[in-house]
Amino acid sequence: MEIPSVVIDRLPVYARALSALERQGREVVSSQELGSRLRVTPAQIRKDLSYFGRFGKQGRGYNVRKLLDELHRILGLDRQWRMALVGVGKLGRAILGYEGFAPQGFRIVEAFDVNPSRVGERINNLTIKDVDELEKALLENPVDVGVIAVPAEIAQDVIDALIRCGVRAILNYAPIAAHVPPGIQVKRIEPVLALQSMTYYLKSARHAAARARN
Amino acid sequence: MEIPSVVIDRLPVYARALSALERQGREVVSSQELGSRLRVTPAQIRKDLSYFGRFGKQGRGYNVRKLLDELHRILGLDRQWRMALVGVGKLGRAILGYEGFAPQGFRIVEAFDVNPSRVGERINNLTIKDVDELEKALLENPVDVGVIAVPAEIAQDVIDALIRCGVRAILNYAPIAAHVPPGIQVKRIEPVLALQSMTYYLKSARHAAARARN
Repeated sequence: MEIPSVVIDRLPVYARALSALERQGREVVSSQELGSRLRVTPAQIRKDLSYFGRFGKQGRGYNVRKLLDELHRILGLDRQWRMALVGVGKLGRAILGYEGFAPQGFRIVEAFDVNPSRVGERINNLTIKDVDELEKALLENPVDVGVIAVPAEIAQDVIDALIRCGVRAILNYAPIAAHVPPGIQVKRIEPVLALQSMTYYLKSARHAAARARN
Repeated sequence: MEIPSVVIDRLPVYARALSALERQGREVVSSQELGSRLRVTPAQIRKDLSYFGRFGKQGRGYNVRKLLDELHRILGLDRQWRMALVGVGKLGRAILGYEGFAPQGFRIVEAFDVNPSRVGERINNLTIKDVDELEKALLENPVDVGVIAVPAEIAQDVIDALIRCGVRAILNYAPIAAHVPPGIQVKRIEPVLALQSMTYYLKSARHAAARARN
């Protein structure tokens, strides 16, 4: 059975909430409580989890540790994942410095740039390599995920090269809609789209703010 | 009628595809073509748009310019939006340097930091202010959106302060699930969650990569 991708997208959110509960020493949680923490309906949580089998007991809630282990196994979060970063400008540097990846098992093990002045530079124990060496380096030492932080004009070429090296998941910070063959995952980190959907809700309130300003 | 937030989230994606078509000089597009560009079903597009009225003519497709104007109006993208950035470390600097905001009408007009060594510094014509001045500055010159790039420990306090200043939309780069009152929009920019949902699809392929490496 094909599981809808929106369901898969929600599982890490459940896993994170369960981790927080576990740190608090909680052993059991109801779908009601989990739902109210995450602002989704309990029915949504029960339905999403039902794709993967039966969890929890009617009226007793979920065993936090067991459900968390199961989600980690389903999502592959019980492993280490190797990532290659392409583009080490301002954004790429922020990504290299981001402290949220490693504790979750995501490690940037290669970094590439097109700019000769950056090649050879060492950042966080990584030596920046020339993007011309990308295919050779990644065919020798494959990575699981490619992280794209290059300008829009060259992003598709970089993505194509990564896919030729066997990369099957792309975290795309470049402002393009990547074209990839079936079976390749792409997630775009896209602050503008996030902003553009919030302004829908702001529109009516804006006039009030403008008035307050005058 | 309350329009589902997932529908609102998709509208900016439609608007962007229509902008690209307009730049190519296209006057009409079918839901089939739009769907195949965006990898969603034509029925999904027609249903999403039907919340906002009748667009396009049966069998003739959508008028690109008219639908784009309408989406801009619905989403409030025909205006300028003022943003305040809080946190001007590595990530904050990358956000200040991000060139995708301004062309879409999103302008960072204030930037704050807690670190005295950064206060007073000028970046891109903005002078970094002390976060202690945040409420005074934003009550005098309100902004529409708060952009959070501070460490997790202080993110909620910063968000609370922004909301006290009338901010109703938060773009959250900090690794916390923000608590906000009803009516306040929050979008979290969350690379780890994006990675964690891709690893679901990578799991089975991983063994192959590991074998190739040996």
